[in-house]
Amino acid sequence: MEKKVFDALFKRVDWEPFAQLMGLKLKKVDKGYSLVEMTTREEMKNILGSTHGGAIFSLIDEAFETASNSHGTIAVALNMNVTFIAPPSPGAVLQAEAKEINLTSRTATYLINVTEGGDRLIATCQALVYRKKEMLPFLEE
Amino acid sequence: MEKKVFDALFKRVDWEPFAQLMGLKLKKVDKGYSLVEMTTREEMKNILGSTHGGAIFSLIDEAFETASNSHGTIAVALNMNVTFIAPPSPGAVLQAEAKEINLTSRTATYLINVTEGGDRLIATCQALVYRKKEMLPFLEE
Amino acid sequence: MEKKVFDALFKRVDWEPFAQLMGLKLKKVDKGYSLVEMTTREEMKNILGSTHGGAIFSLIDEAFETASNSHGTIAVALNMNVTFIAPPSPGAVLQAEAKEINLTSRTATYLINVTEGGDRLIATCQALVYRKKEMLPFLEE
Amino acid sequence: MEKKVFDALFKRVDWEPFAQLMGLKLKKVDKGYSLVEMTTREEMKNILGSTHGGAIFSLIDEAFETASNSHGTIAVALNMNVTFIAPPSPGAVLQAEAKEINLTSRTATYLINVTEGGDRLIATCQALVYRKKEMLPFLEE
Repeated sequence: MEKKVFDALFKRVDWEPFAQLMGLKLKKVDKGYSLVEMTTREEMKNILGSTHGGAIFSLIDEAFETASNSHGTIAVALNMNVTFIAPPSPGAVLQAEAKEINLTSRTATYLINVTEGGDRLIATCQALVYRKKEMLPFLEE
Repeated sequence: MEKKVFDALFKRVDWEPFAQLMGLKLKKVDKGYSLVEMTTREEMKNILGSTHGGAIFSLIDEAFETASNSHGTIAVALNMNVTFIAPPSPGAVLQAEAKEINLTSRTATYLINVTEGGDRLIATCQALVYRKKEMLPFLEE
Repeated sequence: MEKKVFDALFKRVDWEPFAQLMGLKLKKVDKGYSLVEMTTREEMKNILGSTHGGAIFSLIDEAFETASNSHGTIAVALNMNVTFIAPPSPGAVLQAEAKEINLTSRTATYLINVTEGGDRLIATCQALVYRKKEMLPFLEE
Repeated sequence: MEKKVFDALFKRVDWEPFAQLMGLKLKKVDKGYSLVEMTTREEMKNILGSTHGGAIFSLIDEAFETASNSHGTIAVALNMNVTFIAPPSPGAVLQAEAKEINLTSRTATYLINVTEGGDRLIATCQALVYRKKEMLPFLEE
């Protein structure tokens, strides 16, 4: 069952329209865990010439979404608290790693860190989902 | 001076690469205030077929960025706390309105609400900036 | 029914041990709304001689607790995001006003502002509850 | 210098009026690190008979305050985001451990976890300070 869910998540992120728009790549997924990668691009620049917060948040949210849906049932985001630490370098390859720090039948909590080059912290996020009873609709037979 | 800053923000958002990618339109700006619009698109769908949190956050962040830079000096995001209330309808026109609730020489706090059709609440955000002393680099002579 | 719930909340806060310890007074309650008052005391000083964040948060949480339980069913805090704006004056009478900005069958969201003298903003909080189906245990026949 | 700051923090928390009111004990302090303990009491009960969120937050804030002031200069709280995971057991001995995850000349970010019995997670908090240039006023000659 677990492997089926993880395989379905990889396939689904490959299909996911917003993941394609932002260049979000799912690298690893496990129960309550996810690692997602994104390369910053010229198109992501904000008015000050840095990477837009919306692009960094998109990466965070993708890791959150895949980690929280890794149990096979639907999880929907309730709250996300993001602290921006440092702007990424131009053209940086960023990684967001989501770790589950709590899981109940109804809610779950995640800590998501975005790093550049494996150790330079760019942003950190604490995030909460509401867990539904329904299975993910894209699990295949 | 104020009008010069507001005009520069309108021009700068028109230029802003990420605003173009996401279709973010600055509708109004005033001191500590901003209204930004975005139409949700097929390309913004997440793995469950709803609008990706990253797209909704991009709209929030654009209102935050323009409101907090409306004083003419550079403001950088420190922290954003987003609560997701309801998913937008397909193809919805969303508006994010940012209001300043506190301003000191070093920090400022904003409340940003995203609505659909003027009154249906989609997401709400509390956000904090650090205020630098430097003027915005794109103010024209 | 509503009046019965409001009356029970007033009586229960009078009884509430932590409200007594901190001097928290429920002033008004309505559906999804609450106003709570607290006078800062010498005993609330922190290491820098200001009012401890824990005292200010206790006031916020009391308004949140009473507003979110005003529907008659049990609401439990999931997440609270507090931004500290200014330290209160010594001996200040502080008021926390909680307003419901969203209510669903399972969750609800509140905005809580702490002010001194009616208009000086001390802290602002965005807060989220999980709503149970059970009635409040202290509603009387 | 470091030892002088740590010693001064231990003495200052012993003196701190709100720490006495809540029974907050500083157990360890290091650069950007703190461990604080509190035993829940009858007086901390809320309207539902659980430990009041204000008491749990007071413990969190004490760890945050001591960790963020451990560099010898004044740090003031800007924002705290708390997720409540589970209610403590009656009479529980709770520990809050604050770890610095980022430090710049102007701001710093902390992750604070509250546990019971060393491993049962009660609450988790992400918190941000503004760092002043002034030294702590209670450092002794």
